[in-house]
Amino acid sequence: MRMIKWQNGTVLTLDQTKLPLQDVTLKITTVNQMCEAIKVLRIRGAPLLGAAAGFGVAIAAYHSKATSREKLLTELQAAAEQIKSQRPTAVNLHWGADRVLSKAENTQGNVQQVKDAVVAEAEKIADEDAAQNRSIGKNGAVLIKDCDTVLTHCNAGELATVEYGTALAPIRTAWEQGKKIKVIADETRPLLQGARLTAYELMRDGIPVTLITDNMAAYVMSKGLVNLVIVGADRIVQDAVFNKIGTYGVAILAHEHKIPFYVAAPKSTFDLSRKAADIVIEERNPEEVTHIGGVQIAPTGVKVYNPAFDATPLNYVSGIICESQIYYPKDFAKFGTNFPL
Amino acid sequence: MRMIKWQNGTVLTLDQTKLPLQDVTLKITTVNQMCEAIKVLRIRGAPLLGAAAGFGVAIAAYHSKATSREKLLTELQAAAEQIKSQRPTAVNLHWGADRVLSKAENTQGNVQQVKDAVVAEAEKIADEDAAQNRSIGKNGAVLIKDCDTVLTHCNAGELATVEYGTALAPIRTAWEQGKKIKVIADETRPLLQGARLTAYELMRDGIPVTLITDNMAAYVMSKGLVNLVIVGADRIVQDAVFNKIGTYGVAILAHEHKIPFYVAAPKSTFDLSRKAADIVIEERNPEEVTHIGGVQIAPTGVKVYNPAFDATPLNYVSGIICESQIYYPKDFAKFGTNFPL
Repeated sequence: MRMIKWQNGTVLTLDQTKLPLQDVTLKITTVNQMCEAIKVLRIRGAPLLGAAAGFGVAIAAYHSKATSREKLLTELQAAAEQIKSQRPTAVNLHWGADRVLSKAENTQGNVQQVKDAVVAEAEKIADEDAAQNRSIGKNGAVLIKDCDTVLTHCNAGELATVEYGTALAPIRTAWEQGKKIKVIADETRPLLQGARLTAYELMRDGIPVTLITDNMAAYVMSKGLVNLVIVGADRIVQDAVFNKIGTYGVAILAHEHKIPFYVAAPKSTFDLSRKAADIVIEERNPEEVTHIGGVQIAPTGVKVYNPAFDATPLNYVSGIICESQIYYPKDFAKFGTNFPL
Repeated sequence: MRMIKWQNGTVLTLDQTKLPLQDVTLKITTVNQMCEAIKVLRIRGAPLLGAAAGFGVAIAAYHSKATSREKLLTELQAAAEQIKSQRPTAVNLHWGADRVLSKAENTQGNVQQVKDAVVAEAEKIADEDAAQNRSIGKNGAVLIKDCDTVLTHCNAGELATVEYGTALAPIRTAWEQGKKIKVIADETRPLLQGARLTAYELMRDGIPVTLITDNMAAYVMSKGLVNLVIVGADRIVQDAVFNKIGTYGVAILAHEHKIPFYVAAPKSTFDLSRKAADIVIEERNPEEVTHIGGVQIAPTGVKVYNPAFDATPLNYVSGIICESQIYYPKDFAKFGTNFPL
């Protein structure tokens, strides 16, 4: 289902802070509301943030009372700045706001024509993301056989995108093709995106899902319960895939059990000018580890190490499922930084 | 420090349900109090339960008003039965209660002489466990070099034993030998024994400990932050080590990063009449995964798989640190079920 929709000046989306216990639809009609939703993570996930930013600028345009093109553009520039400032390091947020703003600036014509162009561009961003994910789904579904069980880590699902997800896209397509598949979702500590989000969206779509703690992955693999692993990616460099902490461990376990390990991600995730050693991995707040849902689970003052991501060397990756095709690590070695995406 | 002490008819121990937030000493003077403490896991950990059971029978003896040897024995039999019924499948609980009861039955003499023998036998169980763990510590400490970092999983520490722990024993000994070591503790979902117990007892003893989530183990190994892994064991069979879920994954990750992986456990853990395939692994309540500290973290009704243990094949095990010596997997292959322990 569409995670974000435009409906006559109102943006409809799911309040992700309420998941998985409540299914609350947000109706956003002002830039301030959009900013608050982005700030407190009611809307999260890189591709979804790109679309939300575009729709935020569209809301500013749609409801504007500006009587001249210049005044409208000034308002849209302010809206874009306000939206981007909510999460200064979220690349897609900046990209989405700037793309729609740029469309406004490059549209000639009267106020209404600029407004219409802005709304259309925001909808185009959303449509493109949805289409791209469907293509990832189609390309990846060929890897999934009838009755397979796919293990996934974190949430690279619909909830992080406009529609259909990335790692979960091949799973959705295989399911729609009538394959009787099952999913095993790692809970993904510390922030539990697997338990909270992946389990939720698969249950909602009726796709059988079983939740495990991260440290059960090796055991379920050893019992022959996993045919295939598919995960998402935050960034793909020349020699490694960066994704949520724990991905690298799953890749090693899959390798040891001779289970194919695939990454599903759009081409925009590739950053082939860099190598793994160039990337600094963000360390996050210790409280994410010592507290769960406000409950303290570790001794007061304990030292914590909390890296947000890890790097999986390409030799553990069977292939990368993109919107155009599946790429294999041997292609990477051949093409280097000039990888013909 | 001693986890369980006898003091003139009173048993002193730590209330483990209050850890890691509160350090509450229990003072137990009746069999009913001991039974309640065992039932609700104020006292837990196989070796500690053995000692607690013995001390429970000792409390019955010490405070008995029986005027004949026969009446005293009847009371002690009832006490032993009551204690054992608190956790019917806890082998050590049964063993400890029966050992002390048997001592009473085999002691000739008057009421006071039987009482004295019972108390002495209970103290002997505790002393033997403490001594055995010191030996494990001494044998294992030779594996730990100055400035090493040891990763451990779950809690095979002092809190599970009378004193000193099993997997944590070599760490304590190395620390006492003046080696500047560090420990990385996996939090150990679902029940978080690493976060709650291992972190607590190492902090209490001043041994540097860093807490990570289970899925960070591969990353810290890849960064060269781990020199050695030591874990405990619930049962060691001909071809595998059974221990807390997640141990097998850690073993594979250590193997892949060429990090030695040791198991520390007393000889009583060996069950060489069996193979891994003979052992049924307990599946526990889904709520352990879906709820943490009473907080629901996963969708209502989600399917959960919650195996309590896993089996690590011996080819991933560098050695098993026992109270007599370190055994190596090649010895196992040679001796089979006649392993000369």
